[in-house]
Amino acid sequence: MSISPASAFPAPAFTPGAYVTATYIIETSLPLEHAAEVLAGEQSTGTFVRVERESDAVRARFAAQVVSIDEIPPTAASALPGSVGDPALRRRARMRLRFPLDNFGPSLPNLLAAVAGNLFEMKELAAIRLVDLDLPQAFADRYAGPAFGIAGTRALMNRPTGAMLGTIIKPSIGLSPAELAEVVGELAAAGVDFIKDDELQGNGPASPLADRVAAVMPVLERHADRTGTKPMYAFNITDDIGRLEANHDLVVAAGGTCVMACINMVGLAGLEYLRTKSSVPIHGHRAMLGAMARSDQVGIAFGAWQKLARLSGADHLHTNGISNKFYESDAEVLAAIDAVRTPLLGLTPTVPVLSSGQWGGLAHATYEAVGTTDLLVLSGGGIHGHPDGAAAGVASMRDAWASAERGEPAEEAFAASEPLRRASERFGPVRV
Amino acid sequence: MSISPASAFPAPAFTPGAYVTATYIIETSLPLEHAAEVLAGEQSTGTFVRVERESDAVRARFAAQVVSIDEIPPTAASALPGSVGDPALRRRARMRLRFPLDNFGPSLPNLLAAVAGNLFEMKELAAIRLVDLDLPQAFADRYAGPAFGIAGTRALMNRPTGAMLGTIIKPSIGLSPAELAEVVGELAAAGVDFIKDDELQGNGPASPLADRVAAVMPVLERHADRTGTKPMYAFNITDDIGRLEANHDLVVAAGGTCVMACINMVGLAGLEYLRTKSSVPIHGHRAMLGAMARSDQVGIAFGAWQKLARLSGADHLHTNGISNKFYESDAEVLAAIDAVRTPLLGLTPTVPVLSSGQWGGLAHATYEAVGTTDLLVLSGGGIHGHPDGAAAGVASMRDAWASAERGEPAEEAFAASEPLRRASERFGPVRV
Repeated sequence: MSISPASAFPAPAFTPGAYVTATYIIETSLPLEHAAEVLAGEQSTGTFVRVERESDAVRARFAAQVVSIDEIPPTAASALPGSVGDPALRRRARMRLRFPLDNFGPSLPNLLAAVAGNLFEMKELAAIRLVDLDLPQAFADRYAGPAFGIAGTRALMNRPTGAMLGTIIKPSIGLSPAELAEVVGELAAAGVDFIKDDELQGNGPASPLADRVAAVMPVLERHADRTGTKPMYAFNITDDIGRLEANHDLVVAAGGTCVMACINMVGLAGLEYLRTKSSVPIHGHRAMLGAMARSDQVGIAFGAWQKLARLSGADHLHTNGISNKFYESDAEVLAAIDAVRTPLLGLTPTVPVLSSGQWGGLAHATYEAVGTTDLLVLSGGGIHGHPDGAAAGVASMRDAWASAERGEPAEEAFAASEPLRRASERFGPVRV
Repeated sequence: MSISPASAFPAPAFTPGAYVTATYIIETSLPLEHAAEVLAGEQSTGTFVRVERESDAVRARFAAQVVSIDEIPPTAASALPGSVGDPALRRRARMRLRFPLDNFGPSLPNLLAAVAGNLFEMKELAAIRLVDLDLPQAFADRYAGPAFGIAGTRALMNRPTGAMLGTIIKPSIGLSPAELAEVVGELAAAGVDFIKDDELQGNGPASPLADRVAAVMPVLERHADRTGTKPMYAFNITDDIGRLEANHDLVVAAGGTCVMACINMVGLAGLEYLRTKSSVPIHGHRAMLGAMARSDQVGIAFGAWQKLARLSGADHLHTNGISNKFYESDAEVLAAIDAVRTPLLGLTPTVPVLSSGQWGGLAHATYEAVGTTDLLVLSGGGIHGHPDGAAAGVASMRDAWASAERGEPAEEAFAASEPLRRASERFGPVRV
């Protein structure tokens, strides 16, 4: 059998002068410049000894280069396990490293090996965190990014303006398909724009995806027949790669308008694969991101990760919301929303998804901070747990966001809206 | 279009009484029992408020259960960012949580959402690390695991006994396909069992996979014609999911006997997908694992991760080696090798891959600690950087491992083998 690289495997194009610039936070007891050079070597041409054929010409063309090192104040965080050197000499820095694109070409998986591979294991580093990536246009030429984004999502859910308001099915797991259909009917009647499966609801035997689709979609179709609007339901199709396409097709064949994938469970590469198969928006859940994003000392920060997720095709991307039940501060959440809203290589804009502990009382503070309603705001307990039921929960969210967008003070919404006032009895005062 | 769940989508089977038990290291300022219950709730039926339909029956069937909490001594590591509570009350514990299999079924991606999803973001926890997983047989019924493992790899490389000795192409990147062919010829002549691409060598324009395959395989085929033995070359086929099968087929069509995937770059799900397409052993590289495994406070430890990688089909799995250039202690490395060698649900045994700073002087200490030669030992700089060239590097490795297996003292090998003695001049004394 003959191999024909020129036809089946066109050679990747050279892009001389194109670089990826990765930004890291590092800590080290070595001189900062020396640690940076060790990192650059490990992630490009070097190994632990200089070897035959590692010529100056090879280094000149392929070696990663240190662009900048800016010392920043140390934190109280303890050094990573296994780091070496005198603790008294530890210094913290923001460091930018430039990798020739030709080392890996515009391939996200191979990019990761360079900018986020073995470097986390280097004993010379007491902290090593990838915080940002500047990518050349070649990545957007290869990866299409979101197919629907903000405009496509608004069109499908018939919500041309204002915040897109949604909810998560609760309890997360345990509802039978028949109970699920009942809940979905209530939520649709209440005027919700969007409903999603919990990330814990995959394809277990108690409520298989096929049964959920069969139970939910007729309810939404009947609602659409009556009202002209089909709420978007994000079915969690997370599963083995070999099942994603069939899961997606099942949803679409039944009239579904969205699929959800847990990005870290199928992998960024799995998300990109789904993007090539999907004909509806992909709702990108970020569960498990904390495993590599929470520590200040190691891993990959949301700011870098979200770029990869957007290139890979996430139409919606979870950013968390203010006053959430998780560890992130409001400042971190707002930075995450801002990151997702920042244009990236001309891609279709991804919808930031605010969730966790969200209710109507947070609308004014959120809107004041972000200045847009191009958001999907999810309220799980805040809708299902409203004292007067889910319909009142949805109304409280709608009233609050409409008031915020009109520029009213929060107190005014609180005074004018009975559902919002009742919500505050359970979830606390309206936040101003 | 009609949906037929019963045919195209057989309902996942119920397996009442089957559980996944996850073991975590946690730290918290809450009472340990309370923190454990919060975690169990977040990862199964709960949300931040009790909601309609979260009935006692739902909780009884679906709730995760705390199996055990064993307090362990605190460490000096600082608390995770955003953790709440009085630092003076912080306690550390090993905790086991039991999840009904029916919550997710034997699907690795959906399992992860439960045992390793949002929990890393909980502010109640100052440390949260998944350290082990006990999985029921249903996972091995669904996932085939390694197709070749130790025996299949030995057969393909014609190395029925003794340590399997290999190397990594160095410099990592920068060689032209013609230079690569030259290096491979030298290594084959030197009697190496295994050669691999560096994880940094993906499919970039300077040395595209198709060109590497076209350059390398004729060299190995000619060597096989002469000697009857074809060294195994692990081509790094890491790339977008949609390219994995074609990349694999290209290698196999040219006579290649192994493909390498960076597991964290294609995702565990991507590895499992490749397993369903592959007709040769899959060399599983662990680059980027440090992003979630290095911290003592957060993430997923190698012990848990390696089970998922083996189920997903890794025939070879990197464990690091003793005296390595990275952060791990010898004790951690030996625990990793032991973990990979521990039987798992009847799967074909995966080959532990020792690498990083390896040379012949570590053979005796390694063999004494692990007691087996069912290992793939990779020496990159240790072979390419040998003072007398790669052939002497391979000879030094072979002499050292043969001596170790015969039970000789290391000094004896050192005295008997000129290549080993010469190696020690560059890489340090033989380790005893």
